[in-house]
Amino acid sequence: MTTRDSADLGAFTFECGQAIDDLRVAYETYGEFDGDNAVLVCHALTGSQHVAGFAGGGSETSGQARAWWNDIVGPGKAIDTNDYYVVCANVPGSCYGTSGPASEGPDGDPYGTDFPPVTVGDWSRAQRRLLDHLGVGRLRAVVGGSVGGMNVLDWAARYPDDADLIVPVATAARLDPQCLAIDAIARRAITTDPNWQGGAYYGTGETPDDGLALARQLGHVMYLSKASMADKFGRRSAGRDAIRDTFPSDPAAGFFPYRDVESYLDYNAERFVERFDANSYLYLTRAMDDFDLSEGYESDADALAAFEGEALVMSFTGDWHFTTDQAEELAEAFRTSDVGVAHHVIDSDHGHDAFLVEPEKVGPPLRDFLDSGLAGRSVTDTVESDEDDESDFAPVHNSLFSG
Amino acid sequence: MTTRDSADLGAFTFECGQAIDDLRVAYETYGEFDGDNAVLVCHALTGSQHVAGFAGGGSETSGQARAWWNDIVGPGKAIDTNDYYVVCANVPGSCYGTSGPASEGPDGDPYGTDFPPVTVGDWSRAQRRLLDHLGVGRLRAVVGGSVGGMNVLDWAARYPDDADLIVPVATAARLDPQCLAIDAIARRAITTDPNWQGGAYYGTGETPDDGLALARQLGHVMYLSKASMADKFGRRSAGRDAIRDTFPSDPAAGFFPYRDVESYLDYNAERFVERFDANSYLYLTRAMDDFDLSEGYESDADALAAFEGEALVMSFTGDWHFTTDQAEELAEAFRTSDVGVAHHVIDSDHGHDAFLVEPEKVGPPLRDFLDSGLAGRSVTDTVESDEDDESDFAPVHNSLFSG
Repeated sequence: MTTRDSADLGAFTFECGQAIDDLRVAYETYGEFDGDNAVLVCHALTGSQHVAGFAGGGSETSGQARAWWNDIVGPGKAIDTNDYYVVCANVPGSCYGTSGPASEGPDGDPYGTDFPPVTVGDWSRAQRRLLDHLGVGRLRAVVGGSVGGMNVLDWAARYPDDADLIVPVATAARLDPQCLAIDAIARRAITTDPNWQGGAYYGTGETPDDGLALARQLGHVMYLSKASMADKFGRRSAGRDAIRDTFPSDPAAGFFPYRDVESYLDYNAERFVERFDANSYLYLTRAMDDFDLSEGYESDADALAAFEGEALVMSFTGDWHFTTDQAEELAEAFRTSDVGVAHHVIDSDHGHDAFLVEPEKVGPPLRDFLDSGLAGRSVTDTVESDEDDESDFAPVHNSLFSG
Repeated sequence: MTTRDSADLGAFTFECGQAIDDLRVAYETYGEFDGDNAVLVCHALTGSQHVAGFAGGGSETSGQARAWWNDIVGPGKAIDTNDYYVVCANVPGSCYGTSGPASEGPDGDPYGTDFPPVTVGDWSRAQRRLLDHLGVGRLRAVVGGSVGGMNVLDWAARYPDDADLIVPVATAARLDPQCLAIDAIARRAITTDPNWQGGAYYGTGETPDDGLALARQLGHVMYLSKASMADKFGRRSAGRDAIRDTFPSDPAAGFFPYRDVESYLDYNAERFVERFDANSYLYLTRAMDDFDLSEGYESDADALAAFEGEALVMSFTGDWHFTTDQAEELAEAFRTSDVGVAHHVIDSDHGHDAFLVEPEKVGPPLRDFLDSGLAGRSVTDTVESDEDDESDFAPVHNSLFSG
């Protein structure tokens, strides 16, 4: 059984201290709740509650982002909706039905940039409120990738008793300064677009599409890797029939090829601006940039110390948005705080996107971890267990920690 | 002796087939020409002919980019102007006195985007023309970093008999698709700025500063590395006195810190738009993106096969704009074509900027190579020579190839 709905959760005070009178949260659920089988899935920056296809409905977009983890979530899949009750909620500040800058404010107009600043902590708090509304107390697991993985980490710190298992995927305890810089540039691309109009573009007939397109293109560069871009596009021309019309250009540009990589970026940016709100992009990237697991604690380990469940940290060798080194630091924080953890490193050229596009590598350890915790057969760790003498030469080893 | 001058070199037909009636090339020279001691230095994307300080003048900017290699070029320095006659010319398409989009065209107005598209090959051809004008035939060396290194490679392919030595630094035979993508996004930031006005902004009182600032900020991200950004900025706030005023923002932004890394990018972008022309940025990045050493040849090795001198390829471990892997491929092409080559890898966290900011590492091998070719004492290579049995365990070895 699947549901697509939204809940009016009443007044909500954000971490910044500002409040709104009625927080609406749009969500989807898959499977049947049996009291202890709930899995909260946290979406990435521009994702939505539409994590999987509906029965008979494939991965249709339904006016939202496409079902972004349809290869992982569903009947018989790694997060098996025959076994688990999956909940995914659109985060506050986004634009897929949950309250955000584009939502109607108290005066009947969109909030615009009067919407309170949001944090990853606000996302967790809204999700907790939604789960209470749905009658879900303790969760079997909280799972999410990218900034959705930060959302997972925030859950472990904020609600340490509320989940048996957490799975932060392709994420880190905080963004590194290189990614902070790129996010800042992306926001500047939006705010310098004259159509942004200080954020008050709703109803004017002009939206900051150029700026949002540039921001999205920067995102794509972060989500891919050198290797995947070389493999996908090389330096090839997009061909004589390809039309450059997304952005203005000048006659001199015509002497040079319009390359595959440009065509890809332009095409995807055009699609993106049709589905995403520019102010939400500002709000959500700021939440990501601001997240720091250790904030309010002595350290990352201190933030995680109260968590009593087990953690599966997953990372990807080709990911430069969130690196395997950052994931290892995170795993080390879990180890320091005596939380059972495995750091499962996946060898992939697909960059950050790997967590979305390599379900055959992500699925097995995720499935086995949900079933059996750290004892799961496909779960590997970067640290050798003492008993595991035979695997001395493998770079990544099966963990023998049991759940 | 130093000179700062420009030469009117007459009609010039660009590789695209378009011509201008009078190519002007702005240049500087340092030292005395003695017939066989000329060194051509090629500048990087937004560099200028102002490679070094003038006697008594320090590294003053004189309305141009600052003396960009003042630590390397000068009396007693690695490229010792007591010994060598150094020539550096601003490339066609740029904006420091050489003909480009901002120059006056035949009708008395700036060319704007009617200026012919330029290529790296056009830069070499203009430099060759200038050297003829200065009475310099054969060169002791051609040296340059980044796209200036591509300029060096083009010299080796185009004028294989004209230089004893070449030093391509922090460069590659071609840009990879990741960097092509970032350059394309940077150009889009300029052309979507309404003040760009299709390139015809000269004299309108409005210049596409926002777009050019974004392009520059992307450049800075490419020039730094994760490690250098972490070291330089971390996630620190720029402090309460820091003012965000370079780009528009909204009230919600005020809840979050204005970080050191943003402050750095904003400050430098503001300085950059004062000194650089937006159309030149379009033209020069296109030249860089288009460069492919193998174009018109069977391979990179084939392009280099006629070169009879020696090559010192220098690369930096922290450089992701032009990687050490790309430099090794380039060195391999020299080896395949039986050109004497050493690939000197410099261990550095400074990213692509290392070739500018680590003169103490760049200087010695460069000095020794100019003096003694591959036999130079500080010159190392990635390939072990057979005779070099003692250095089996060092990652980088002194080359025993002799000059």
